[in-house]
Amino acid sequence: MLLSWTKYSSICNRLIHTVAKQKSNGKKKVIVLGAGWGGFQFVRYLNRKKYDVTLISPRNHFLFTPLLPSTTVGTLEFRCIIEPVRTLPNLQYYQAYCDEISHKTNQIRCRDYFNRNKEFSLDYDYLVCCHGAQSNTFKVPGVEEHAFFLKQLSDARAIRNRLMELFERASNRFISEEERKALTTFVIVGGGPTSIEFSGELHDFIVEDVAKWFPDVKTRVIVVESTDHILGSFDSKLTDYAMGILKSRSEITLKTNTHVKHVGPNEVSLSNGEVIQCGITVWSTGLSPSKLTSSLQFLKEERSGRIYTNDHLQVLCDDKTTVTNMFALGDCATPMDHSLPATAQVAVQQAKYLAQRLNKKDFHLKDPKDIRNDDYSKFNFNNAGMLAYLGGYGGVADLKKAKATGFSSWLLWRSVYITRLVSFKNRLLVGMFWFKSFVFGRDISRF
Amino acid sequence: MLLSWTKYSSICNRLIHTVAKQKSNGKKKVIVLGAGWGGFQFVRYLNRKKYDVTLISPRNHFLFTPLLPSTTVGTLEFRCIIEPVRTLPNLQYYQAYCDEISHKTNQIRCRDYFNRNKEFSLDYDYLVCCHGAQSNTFKVPGVEEHAFFLKQLSDARAIRNRLMELFERASNRFISEEERKALTTFVIVGGGPTSIEFSGELHDFIVEDVAKWFPDVKTRVIVVESTDHILGSFDSKLTDYAMGILKSRSEITLKTNTHVKHVGPNEVSLSNGEVIQCGITVWSTGLSPSKLTSSLQFLKEERSGRIYTNDHLQVLCDDKTTVTNMFALGDCATPMDHSLPATAQVAVQQAKYLAQRLNKKDFHLKDPKDIRNDDYSKFNFNNAGMLAYLGGYGGVADLKKAKATGFSSWLLWRSVYITRLVSFKNRLLVGMFWFKSFVFGRDISRF
Repeated sequence: MLLSWTKYSSICNRLIHTVAKQKSNGKKKVIVLGAGWGGFQFVRYLNRKKYDVTLISPRNHFLFTPLLPSTTVGTLEFRCIIEPVRTLPNLQYYQAYCDEISHKTNQIRCRDYFNRNKEFSLDYDYLVCCHGAQSNTFKVPGVEEHAFFLKQLSDARAIRNRLMELFERASNRFISEEERKALTTFVIVGGGPTSIEFSGELHDFIVEDVAKWFPDVKTRVIVVESTDHILGSFDSKLTDYAMGILKSRSEITLKTNTHVKHVGPNEVSLSNGEVIQCGITVWSTGLSPSKLTSSLQFLKEERSGRIYTNDHLQVLCDDKTTVTNMFALGDCATPMDHSLPATAQVAVQQAKYLAQRLNKKDFHLKDPKDIRNDDYSKFNFNNAGMLAYLGGYGGVADLKKAKATGFSSWLLWRSVYITRLVSFKNRLLVGMFWFKSFVFGRDISRF
Repeated sequence: MLLSWTKYSSICNRLIHTVAKQKSNGKKKVIVLGAGWGGFQFVRYLNRKKYDVTLISPRNHFLFTPLLPSTTVGTLEFRCIIEPVRTLPNLQYYQAYCDEISHKTNQIRCRDYFNRNKEFSLDYDYLVCCHGAQSNTFKVPGVEEHAFFLKQLSDARAIRNRLMELFERASNRFISEEERKALTTFVIVGGGPTSIEFSGELHDFIVEDVAKWFPDVKTRVIVVESTDHILGSFDSKLTDYAMGILKSRSEITLKTNTHVKHVGPNEVSLSNGEVIQCGITVWSTGLSPSKLTSSLQFLKEERSGRIYTNDHLQVLCDDKTTVTNMFALGDCATPMDHSLPATAQVAVQQAKYLAQRLNKKDFHLKDPKDIRNDDYSKFNFNNAGMLAYLGGYGGVADLKKAKATGFSSWLLWRSVYITRLVSFKNRLLVGMFWFKSFVFGRDISRF
C-alpha cells in the first residue's frame, strides 16, 4: 500500500519539504514530541488555550503501560487502556516521526508515519521532547528478528496471537512429543517489573484458562535474568518474596545469573551453554536511546544515552550552556545532577511540573529568550513507591511508609491503577473486563 | 516463523501423513468441517456424549456475522461477537484446513493451519460439511490484491485500521487537496445487507465521531451496485426506503446499474468509464465456492457451485445416488429440490435439524450404512424474515407478518441480535459496548 501511494502521489509531492505552514495566531508555538507518559500528560495538564500546541507522535494514542502485560493474555482488552490523543481539545496532532531538531533555528523536521517519503517542517517557540526510548537488545544477535518486545499494544497483540497459535498447535495430536515440548516452552528474558508482571499474567492464564480449554497441554515458562535477583529496583525483602513465589510455581523456572547469547526463531542460547527449544521469546530488559535521541548533539548520560537536562528540565548543550526553550523529560532524558529512573512516575511528575510552569500567569507572553529560572522552583521527584503484580492474586508493594506482599498488594495494585487511568471511560472498561475475566475467563480466540 | 518451524521440524516430520490415530471408544465418529453458523451450531445442538465429535476449521471461534459491520468502526469491539470453539465440551478441535474428502473410504485429509506442511488424516462415520463459501470477486482484476473483504474479524480489523490511517493522513495539513480528497473517498462495492450495513455504520462513525475528532476531514462514500436497487432480497418498498435514506445522506453517493471493471491500489474503474481515486475499496458482492467445494466430485448447483443435497441434507453423487453418511449444509450447499439462500438463518436451521436427527434415541447405535430417511422428516426452511441496519438509528425489517422501517426496525434489529448471541458473556459485552459507544463514542486509536 505504501509503495502504491508513493506511485500515486505525483513526483513533486514525493519529497515535499514544506516549511511551516502553521497559522500564526499570535500565540507561542509549543511542539511536543511523543504521546506517552511525558508527552500526553504534559499536553493534558497544559493550558492549551494560551498556546498553539502541536503534538508529534507515531502513535495516535496514549497507552497506560502498567496494564500492558494484562492485555497479552486477555485479562484486559487492548482498547481499555488507551486514550486517543485527539480527545484532548485545542491540539494539533500529526501521526509522524520527528527526524531532526534544529534548536538554533527553532525548527523540527518530521516524516509522515504512513507515507515515509512525505516530510514536513514545523517552527516552534518551545519544544518539549518526550519521545521516550526503545527496548534494549544489548546487541544480542537474533533479538531484533525473533524476540517479541512488550512496549506497545501491537506487541501485546502479537504476543497474544502467538500464544494462542502455540496452544492450538500443541493440542494437535499428530505432532511429536519433542515438538509439543518446544511449542509449549516460553522464554521471558529480563527480571524487571514488565517481565515479572507478564510472567504473572501468563501464570493466571495457564492456571485458569489454558488448563480448562487445552487440558492436554503442559506449559513451561523460563525466566532468564542476568543478575542474581529479579525486580532489582524493589526492596530486597520484596525481591526475595517475589523470587519465592516464582520458584513455587510448577510451570516456572527462574534462571538468575544467566545471559542470553543468541535468539533463534525457535530457540534461545544461554551463557551457561544451554540451548532451549521454545515457542516464544519475550524480551524486556530495559531501555536504550531512540534513533532521534542518538542523533541529537547534546550532553548525554554516558551509561544510558539519555539527554542531560538541568533541574528545570532544559536541555544542555555540549558546552553545558542551556537551551532555554527546549525541554526534555521522561525516558529520553534525565536531570544531570539527579539521575532519575526511567519510569512512568518520573515522566508524569515532570510533565505536570513543566505544564504548571508554562501555565503560570504571564509565561505565555514572555519571549522564550527572556525566560529566567530563578523565579521557578527546580524539579523534585517525589517517589510514591512501586507496585508489581505477580499473578495468583498476589503482588509486591514497595511504598515510602510500608512494604506489603500478597493479596493486599494485589488489591492496592488494582485500586491504584484503576484510579490513575486517564478517563472515566477507561475506568469503566477496565473494571468491566476485570469482572468479565473473573467470571467468564479469558478469550482464547485468535484472529 | 512458518518457514523456520519447517526448518526446525526434522525432515521426517515434514510431510507426515499420519492416518487416524483417533482413539476408538466404541462411539461413532462425527467429523464437522467449519466453525460458522452451520458447523458451530450443529456441534452446539448435537448430543456430544453420544458421539466422538471432531471439528476441523481454520478459525478457532464462531463469529456472529450479523454484527461484523459494527466492529469495522468500533461500535462493538471484535471480541464481543465471537465464541471460541473450545468452550463446547466433549469436542476434539483441530485448527486446520480440510483438503480432501474420500467418501468411499470415509476419510478426510487435513492440513495444519499454522504449519502448512503438516498433514494428517482422520476417519469418520458421519461427515458434516459446513465449510462455507468465500467472497466472490467475479474475477474482476485487482480485487484479490487491493480490495478489503468483510467476512472475518481479521477483515474488520484491517478495515478499521485502514480507516483510521486514512483519517490521520487526511488531517495532515501538509498534503495537497487532491490527495486529501482521494484519501477520504471510500468505495463500497455491492448492495447486499453486509455492504449496506457497513455503509450505515460508517455513516454513524463519520457523523458522530470523525466530525468531532477530525473536524477538517470531509468524507465521501460511494456505494456501487450492479443492479438497479440495493438490498435485493428485501421487499421492494423496503428497498426503495433504504435507497431514499442512502440518497438523503450528504456523504453517500449511490451508483446503481454500475459494475466495477478494475480495482487498483488507490482507485476503482467503473463500467461507466469513471475512475475514482479512493483510500479504500470494500468488496462484498456475494459468495463463490471455496477451494474444497470446487475440488469435490459431487452434484452441484451450476449457478452457485454449491453442493447439491437431498431434502435430508445428504450429499448427492454425480449419478444422483446418495452418500448416506455425508451431510452438507450452510453456504457450501443447497437442497437440490428447494434452492435456499446462503444465509445464517438457513444454516442454523439446517444445523439444528441435523443435530436433532443424530440426537434421536438410537441413531448413534445404527450402522451408518443402514440409516433410512423414511423415518425422519425432510428439512423445511422456515423464513423468519430479514433485518438490516441503515445507520442513524434506522433500519428495515422484512418479516413474515409485517414490514417496518426506521427507528422501530433498529430497535428490533438490536433486540433480535443481542438475544441470538451464543453466550451470556457475549450478550453482556455487546450491551456494554453499545452503551459505551452511545455515551463515550468510538475509539479512534490505531495500533
